[in-house]
Amino acid sequence: MREVKISLVGYGVVGHGVVEVLDRKRKALRDMGLDLKLVSVTDHTGSVVADDGVEGQKILGERTLQQVSNCEISSKEIIRSVESDLVVEVTPTNIVHGQPGLGHMEEALSQGKHLVTSNKGPLVVAYGRLKRLAEDHGVSMKYEATVGGTMPLISLIERTLVGNNILGIRGIFNGTCNYILTRMTEEQYPYARALNEAQDLGYAEADPTYDVEGVDTAGKVVILANSIFDMNVKYGDVNVEGITRITPEALLLAKKRGYVIKLIGEVPALTVRPMLVPIGSPLAVGSTLNAAAIYTDLSGTITVTGLGAGRIETASAILSDIVSIYRTKSIDSIS
Amino acid sequence: MREVKISLVGYGVVGHGVVEVLDRKRKALRDMGLDLKLVSVTDHTGSVVADDGVEGQKILGERTLQQVSNCEISSKEIIRSVESDLVVEVTPTNIVHGQPGLGHMEEALSQGKHLVTSNKGPLVVAYGRLKRLAEDHGVSMKYEATVGGTMPLISLIERTLVGNNILGIRGIFNGTCNYILTRMTEEQYPYARALNEAQDLGYAEADPTYDVEGVDTAGKVVILANSIFDMNVKYGDVNVEGITRITPEALLLAKKRGYVIKLIGEVPALTVRPMLVPIGSPLAVGSTLNAAAIYTDLSGTITVTGLGAGRIETASAILSDIVSIYRTKSIDSIS
Repeated sequence: MREVKISLVGYGVVGHGVVEVLDRKRKALRDMGLDLKLVSVTDHTGSVVADDGVEGQKILGERTLQQVSNCEISSKEIIRSVESDLVVEVTPTNIVHGQPGLGHMEEALSQGKHLVTSNKGPLVVAYGRLKRLAEDHGVSMKYEATVGGTMPLISLIERTLVGNNILGIRGIFNGTCNYILTRMTEEQYPYARALNEAQDLGYAEADPTYDVEGVDTAGKVVILANSIFDMNVKYGDVNVEGITRITPEALLLAKKRGYVIKLIGEVPALTVRPMLVPIGSPLAVGSTLNAAAIYTDLSGTITVTGLGAGRIETASAILSDIVSIYRTKSIDSIS
Repeated sequence: MREVKISLVGYGVVGHGVVEVLDRKRKALRDMGLDLKLVSVTDHTGSVVADDGVEGQKILGERTLQQVSNCEISSKEIIRSVESDLVVEVTPTNIVHGQPGLGHMEEALSQGKHLVTSNKGPLVVAYGRLKRLAEDHGVSMKYEATVGGTMPLISLIERTLVGNNILGIRGIFNGTCNYILTRMTEEQYPYARALNEAQDLGYAEADPTYDVEGVDTAGKVVILANSIFDMNVKYGDVNVEGITRITPEALLLAKKRGYVIKLIGEVPALTVRPMLVPIGSPLAVGSTLNAAAIYTDLSGTITVTGLGAGRIETASAILSDIVSIYRTKSIDSIS
């Protein structure tokens, strides 16, 4: 049995999901030979530290850790001082300066701890630096959940499409935009009405700018460019156009000609823009789905589709990343 | 550098693809630490054996091995007597008795050699027996290419969706049927005309029974049931209905209501039948594409789409399987 001590940093929606999934999957993971033990959970209101494992059931009812905190030191301090093998970083994302996640990640990697995250910001701002930190300290950095939520894209490329050259990726990386465009197509709603509906259903924020202007999608394009295509680009390198100027008339015209309009992020082209997608093709998926078409030299085009967000779904991508760290070794380390 | 000696059994369309892909990817594989050396290639007309590696360029122009054969013993004999680590079995499939592939696979596994195959027949007929043989001899048996060609399904479940319970799989597993149904929908062709077109384009055989009656899809359902769901079923356990009775009128009516009709294989339900699929949903893909929706407890529904066949595409799935054998170790074998 391999024991892995985990520090969880961030206790919002995704953090709760991680605690719940680790709890639900404890037995199945032990059957796989992995004993994942949560030794600390931290948010901006406090921390719960327990050497013998934080009990999920004791904290899952708490929205924040304020009432149950047993430790007053900062998140970075916790990462440094609590004995753990791996840090899961799921604080809110900021793609301008990457904080507070960036500081947490640097601390974790510098301490020689593996890092698994769903937090886009730090990777958009400083992918290269974080990657080098991980390499210098001989640890893994995994971030499947940052791009397309539960849709397995990075791991699919790294683990399953191995041997292929990846020629390009085109995808729907924002479920909010996909929902709005789908409803505009289905119901001939104008943009504002579809947005309102998405907000009512909790698919869009009160301030939807981040999603509908393509900012979120562009962040994912940056992460894919730097990680899969080994580019060294920043947010400003991406040519971004959102969905706010799309009309129901444009969608209707497209539909009559056999197309839907989707907000597509493209690498290595570094563009985010509304594009015509043929109905019946794998990227023509509706609702809040994300999808990514991976263009390869050997396998042709492989497309993967899944929910772009969701508490348990995102936590599932994080769990898959954790397991992969302990299950995969590189070829040359096999005796 | 890890040297892996490979015996290739079967030199039809897929066999040629394997030789070509190994040749094209030699350098990239060496960069990954793998030296894949083809030490024998066999078909029903002869064999080419070379301890220091068969040169792809010398045989790729040959349709069969008759003219270049340097060894007169049988395929099984070659598997037994040629020193190799891994056997790639790509002879023609037969889902009634599984031969000749079944004999080749039993021989390979009994000799303690890893097995990678695109040949459905032996797995439909004798999955359990082959699996036990592999376990008894401590070797791997990999068969991604048997289900959905280049579409990564089995490896996606085993490597990427780890931690999930797989609740069910529904998929389009036959590109010929998908092409026929797509053309009937697009052009209002009757079945016979769409079939003729598919035959003209090489997407359907002169005798299309195996595809259009759902036999091929049912074979894949059996493989998924036994491997992913640990069932112990045979071809006769699958409830099979093909596409030959579908009319353009039915497709038109479906389309008006927002649906397409696809031939869907379903596990663990063990059914193959034409089903209504909502337009805009991930399984509503056209042309010769294959697609599989994987229903999970944590990640929701993940759908993957890719080409179901093709020389290089199938060989790519085989290559991915080969690499995975040498790249992945189980958790408890990590020191």
